[in-house]
Amino acid sequence: MSLLQPWQEKAAKKRTSLYDLIPQEWRLPKSIINNPPKNSTIVPSQCGILSKLDLEITEIDNIEELAHRIAQEKYSAVQVIEAYCKRAAIAHQLVNCLAEILFTQALERAQYLDDYFKSTGGKTIGPFHGIPISFKDQFNIKGIETAMAYIGYLGDIAENNSVLVDIVLSLGAVLYVKTALPQTVMLPETRSHLLGITLNPLNRELSCGGSSGGEGSLIAMKGSICGLGTDIGGSIRFPTALNGIYGLKPSDGRIPYGRARNSFDGQESVPSVIGPMTRSLSNIRLFFKSILETKPWLIDPQVHNIPWREDLFQEGQMNKLSFGVIQFDQKVHLSPPVQRAINMSINALEKAGHQVIQWDTIDHPEGIDILVKMYQADGGKDVQKALDLSGESIVPGAFVGKPETEISIYEYWQLNVARRDYAMKYLEKWNKTKEITSTGRPIDGIISPICGLPAYPHEYQISIEYTGIVNLLQLTSVILPITRVDLQLDQITDEYRNMKIASDLDKMAKETYKGPEVFENCIVGLQIICRRLEEEKAIGMAMVLEKALELYQ
Amino acid sequence: MSLLQPWQEKAAKKRTSLYDLIPQEWRLPKSIINNPPKNSTIVPSQCGILSKLDLEITEIDNIEELAHRIAQEKYSAVQVIEAYCKRAAIAHQLVNCLAEILFTQALERAQYLDDYFKSTGGKTIGPFHGIPISFKDQFNIKGIETAMAYIGYLGDIAENNSVLVDIVLSLGAVLYVKTALPQTVMLPETRSHLLGITLNPLNRELSCGGSSGGEGSLIAMKGSICGLGTDIGGSIRFPTALNGIYGLKPSDGRIPYGRARNSFDGQESVPSVIGPMTRSLSNIRLFFKSILETKPWLIDPQVHNIPWREDLFQEGQMNKLSFGVIQFDQKVHLSPPVQRAINMSINALEKAGHQVIQWDTIDHPEGIDILVKMYQADGGKDVQKALDLSGESIVPGAFVGKPETEISIYEYWQLNVARRDYAMKYLEKWNKTKEITSTGRPIDGIISPICGLPAYPHEYQISIEYTGIVNLLQLTSVILPITRVDLQLDQITDEYRNMKIASDLDKMAKETYKGPEVFENCIVGLQIICRRLEEEKAIGMAMVLEKALELYQ
Repeated sequence: MSLLQPWQEKAAKKRTSLYDLIPQEWRLPKSIINNPPKNSTIVPSQCGILSKLDLEITEIDNIEELAHRIAQEKYSAVQVIEAYCKRAAIAHQLVNCLAEILFTQALERAQYLDDYFKSTGGKTIGPFHGIPISFKDQFNIKGIETAMAYIGYLGDIAENNSVLVDIVLSLGAVLYVKTALPQTVMLPETRSHLLGITLNPLNRELSCGGSSGGEGSLIAMKGSICGLGTDIGGSIRFPTALNGIYGLKPSDGRIPYGRARNSFDGQESVPSVIGPMTRSLSNIRLFFKSILETKPWLIDPQVHNIPWREDLFQEGQMNKLSFGVIQFDQKVHLSPPVQRAINMSINALEKAGHQVIQWDTIDHPEGIDILVKMYQADGGKDVQKALDLSGESIVPGAFVGKPETEISIYEYWQLNVARRDYAMKYLEKWNKTKEITSTGRPIDGIISPICGLPAYPHEYQISIEYTGIVNLLQLTSVILPITRVDLQLDQITDEYRNMKIASDLDKMAKETYKGPEVFENCIVGLQIICRRLEEEKAIGMAMVLEKALELYQ
Repeated sequence: MSLLQPWQEKAAKKRTSLYDLIPQEWRLPKSIINNPPKNSTIVPSQCGILSKLDLEITEIDNIEELAHRIAQEKYSAVQVIEAYCKRAAIAHQLVNCLAEILFTQALERAQYLDDYFKSTGGKTIGPFHGIPISFKDQFNIKGIETAMAYIGYLGDIAENNSVLVDIVLSLGAVLYVKTALPQTVMLPETRSHLLGITLNPLNRELSCGGSSGGEGSLIAMKGSICGLGTDIGGSIRFPTALNGIYGLKPSDGRIPYGRARNSFDGQESVPSVIGPMTRSLSNIRLFFKSILETKPWLIDPQVHNIPWREDLFQEGQMNKLSFGVIQFDQKVHLSPPVQRAINMSINALEKAGHQVIQWDTIDHPEGIDILVKMYQADGGKDVQKALDLSGESIVPGAFVGKPETEISIYEYWQLNVARRDYAMKYLEKWNKTKEITSTGRPIDGIISPICGLPAYPHEYQISIEYTGIVNLLQLTSVILPITRVDLQLDQITDEYRNMKIASDLDKMAKETYKGPEVFENCIVGLQIICRRLEEEKAIGMAMVLEKALELYQ
């Protein structure tokens, strides 16, 4: 007789069947599996599974470059997808980042693209011809399960593609994996009874973040060049920052969410948004621009008809920009490496002729309070219904309501009013900065940490003051890696040691930052926040920061 | 001892103090007051209160023309506002359309504008320099009461202007009145214990519509050249159509709602929107374009940063357009004059080379069901709180919830999901029309009635199937007058007489349409519906229809 609960058995079966989809010849040797290095990213080039060509292909960070090489027949689409399937398989064995494996379908699709290319005398289907695109397991792919890390959703086969899946296919992309997410989708790490825990490829003792952690870790392993995550409180930004990659959290209404699934479906006060997670800023630009060029508002009623605005992108690259900077969210102080990343950014921007002024966050806790009440307004009923399907228990730490947090519709409407009034005050604060900038304009954007720590251990509770305001106000944010944790430079300073503890979360963060050794190999990511619906400008400004950092170093 | 309830006394006092603000010399003679003509619009030119100049000024329908004459010093701003104050005062005495009278402030403001003009050697403040703009009493004007037709809100003095009030002032406008609306703001007529009933200027035995009925009737009286209403189920469109004027119901996020008041404040599933009601399509274009040119998204966080798009406006004026047409909403059949307006529109458009195809509304009742559940989700608590402030009773017929209609947050979220799925299906239906249009594109827009009758009596319950879907899906709609009820042409036909009754509402409508005599002097208005956020195109298409009708007649 099995000692497992029926739901545990179902989960185990799912994990096994997923694993079984990895061909034998792509399986890592027991020596690595049993004794993996702390830094998983070194394995792909050393394990012998990837050919020289596979490595060459998967080391290209730039989508345009890879697409160019396919269009120039340097690589076939089949070669590219084979390389990525292999590398994704290796990644999964090391960090447990996948939710669905579609290697067979991917090879068929790549073959179709190669045939199309040949039969048309060298035509590509679109800018993503032959480019592998990974999707968090909230997206529907016709004929494939969308379990969304709920055991109760196993067997839920999608009848249609999500709108965004259709769009990337229309542009020539190849689907090959869906990636792991946490149960409830409301957790800043990637953990579920169904899929287990996803590890951070840079340092497996740490979390890969969440909820889009499968994407983050897969991309850091270079098992994907571009994937799609979602963000309702930081779910793109945590894993983007923690895995040292690039990402965009747009405002609601730009990237189509149609026919994608979610927890709290129908909760529209703080809309979840979809954004690309990838390996360069130019990829973000290309992806976002390419999606908009298909006019997604014609097929998804929730998308605004706002095309790519080149002028706004250029506005983000002006010679003299003015940045606000957040150095403390009122809850958790910055650990030395994050503080150093902020300092580097300030210095680099000032050296490049831009201005940086302090951004006051005294009102952030008030905003987060509204946000959390919105998350929890249903008293956790939505999640409970999903759990009840299988009988599984909830993972601890999820931002999910309990019976006592349920409120009435009237109270919910008052929360919306509170959010709207808060947004108005926040915008007034933003506009008022024109009195102190040297440009005469209000600040163009804000540089902000994602988190006080460069990364965090598994089952760690984080503050969302650095990320949540962006969701509450539907601002736009671009995340980029700034610097790697340095064993010398990031020692605990007297200032950090003697800092007044601001909250329980601050206490925990300080206890966790025992020194840079704990965060060895981690990369600190920061975000550039712009006004609502100013995605193009945020991308432009992130490019300015990246360039300034290059020149500064 | 008074036989009145305290709230009745307060209301009476308010009405009296409002009336007292009308100067003696602008008071209509008792002969008219005691025996007003059915058609109030004939009074202003006959009553002797308006000078020849006053009449000349107020008969100009075009904002641009009026602004031009002010800028050319043909009229001073003071002359213009005096003329409009007088005419608004006359209108109020006839149809009871005002909620606040600001004549003194208006004259001061006009004097300021004239002084500015002189002192700057002929500079105007903006495109609305000296133009009177009226506002429904949901808008805040600093220092003025915003009672919103609730007795309990009397004494609620606004501390700040609504965002849109600030914007029109920045463009040079003059505020002079706020207009009547129904208690609850959820009634398709304009009736409250506070302000009484507003009558239809074209035929005082009929309703002026609602909830923006004060605007509609004031503008029909030419007591305003342009006013602002709001629409959550038809509240701009009913009074626009019933008063024979022009209006725009935009999608959410284009015209700033910041610091305006509302019933159900915070109810965001079906957002109420603001739109201009006015006396020509070119005024709608000018108003909308002028507001957008101030970049309202920089000061109101709910506004999308979408500028005026001239290309989309031009797209609405293409040589060959394809229109869907709605002739039955599944609930109420079209009465003869409305059917004739539809037929005229179809014939005129086809003669002008455009295509018109039938638009299926089989799914409209399903959408309206979702919409009404959303309105009533709070069980009427919001309105009850407003009523409780004074003890007044609710006006019958309001689309307001009762305790038994209250739902949980979880159920509310499911309603949002239902609306989103409905929107997706509706859009698919729209896109599928490209298979049957001769343009090869999906239909460009839809011609639709506002109501089965050309107007309706007071305290009449109407169907919102013709209007509500536009709100549920946040589509855009431009309303224009098509034809006047004709005592010969609009006799009851055998077809109308023998039509199968579709619903109780249909039965009531048929009983109400006793013949064209009942609707003497009424004008039938129709709406052009375009996709979400396609305001510019809808304006362009309405112009096409108006031009086609001119050529056709």
